[in-house]
Amino acid sequence: MKILIAGLGLIGGSFAKAFKKHTDHTVLGYDIVPAVTEFALECGAVDRIASPEDFGEADLTLVCLYPKVAVDFILSNFDRFKPGSTVTDACGVKCAVYDGLRDKLGSARFTFIGMHPMAGKEHSGFDYSDADLFVGGGLLLTPDGAPDDRVAALKSTLMQLGFARCNITTPEHHDLMIAYTSQLPHVLACSYIRDPLAKQHTGYSAGSFQDVTRVAYINDVMWSELFLCNRENLSGEIDLLIKHLTEFKDAINGGDRSQLCKMMSASREIKRKV
Amino acid sequence: MKILIAGLGLIGGSFAKAFKKHTDHTVLGYDIVPAVTEFALECGAVDRIASPEDFGEADLTLVCLYPKVAVDFILSNFDRFKPGSTVTDACGVKCAVYDGLRDKLGSARFTFIGMHPMAGKEHSGFDYSDADLFVGGGLLLTPDGAPDDRVAALKSTLMQLGFARCNITTPEHHDLMIAYTSQLPHVLACSYIRDPLAKQHTGYSAGSFQDVTRVAYINDVMWSELFLCNRENLSGEIDLLIKHLTEFKDAINGGDRSQLCKMMSASREIKRKV
Repeated sequence: MKILIAGLGLIGGSFAKAFKKHTDHTVLGYDIVPAVTEFALECGAVDRIASPEDFGEADLTLVCLYPKVAVDFILSNFDRFKPGSTVTDACGVKCAVYDGLRDKLGSARFTFIGMHPMAGKEHSGFDYSDADLFVGGGLLLTPDGAPDDRVAALKSTLMQLGFARCNITTPEHHDLMIAYTSQLPHVLACSYIRDPLAKQHTGYSAGSFQDVTRVAYINDVMWSELFLCNRENLSGEIDLLIKHLTEFKDAINGGDRSQLCKMMSASREIKRKV
Repeated sequence: MKILIAGLGLIGGSFAKAFKKHTDHTVLGYDIVPAVTEFALECGAVDRIASPEDFGEADLTLVCLYPKVAVDFILSNFDRFKPGSTVTDACGVKCAVYDGLRDKLGSARFTFIGMHPMAGKEHSGFDYSDADLFVGGGLLLTPDGAPDDRVAALKSTLMQLGFARCNITTPEHHDLMIAYTSQLPHVLACSYIRDPLAKQHTGYSAGSFQDVTRVAYINDVMWSELFLCNRENLSGEIDLLIKHLTEFKDAINGGDRSQLCKMMSASREIKRKV
């Protein structure tokens, strides 16, 4: 297969390197920054630099760009993708991508399947890309009506890169889950670390401080777009967390030890189960 | 030196094993559960089982009990401790311990120095104790007027167990810091995991879910006491976190990308510095 990676940042670069390391497919690389594609070619992450004229060669296209730019990219190259090929994206939100494409997807000669690799790093850009970034991670696919055989083929191709599991779900359920499992912890890390006491934390934590703040070294440009693309879900998740924190606070302020024990036992039981 | 460990749970048991492994001191063990002291003796964690009549032999006494019981233990054995010896506790709050002791400490023939080892495990009890529990961790001492030479001697004795650093501070500052660095992450883990979506998290997180919920497998009896002993600080810290979360939510609801970027850049900068 010929695989086109559009956007050679951390994720796109890692997909390119991963396909080169773990498969025999031919990798074409495209990026608007010439220095990036040249470096990717030089270090063997891609077999060839692609120009838009070459997009029609690819059996599989991975669009590794931020959501709005990914939608623009797919729309503006809509008639260039190979008939019968598969196009996917790697955005952290899925409804916004489908919303941007849905009007045109009915007339597409290719199959679009939304994708989200559960992987990341605190640093961005091709320089930090890694052939093993996806090893052990989760792969999320949101077919939204795409044919089962195409979904199975995409899953099979991507699972070669080392993902530990694949969840197939709707764009709506994806966005709800991600608001809780990924976006909320990022909001939390950024909120938690704003406490003036953060500067004095050294020596006062057995690991919890590092756990909660790990993702506070954040890419604000990317995450602000992801948050706003998923604002209703994320806002609801923040509200629910605030509600639960407030219940804790009320029990603490009221000196209600039995209520505190009840809440903590319930949480421990959930933790044990999940 | 003869060192008495009163309370052979996770922390007391780990201190006993650590002194045996890393020093040549003689370790006396005391616990209200005979099976625990017998097992501790059998596995070599202590050199001898102590009864209250033996407390006067110890040059250093570590009281490894929950705060209220620790205060009761020290008060009820007040005249048994060896004149000129040092007594310390290992509680996660310090003001409550000093408040319970202060009226009598003036007349003590021993020196009391508050202590808090920054170490823990999700499981409790002697069975989980570990000679290397403190290796690489932080040691906190709150002398509250105890003589410098006694503080230095206690620090020097404890640092042999593998602690990476020692912070010496006031009980008040200790309790404020701990509310933020340790208690708040526990409240957070328990609050975060109460979301019904927690049950479906598998595959939807690149690590953030595990980070935030690590400490949700919580000992509710111990932590409810610690929280209530430090309620004003902890309540204030929860409020501040809710304030910062609300600011995030407002920016998300308002679609204010520049404000989101500004908040995240500020958080990233703090994370970079700390």
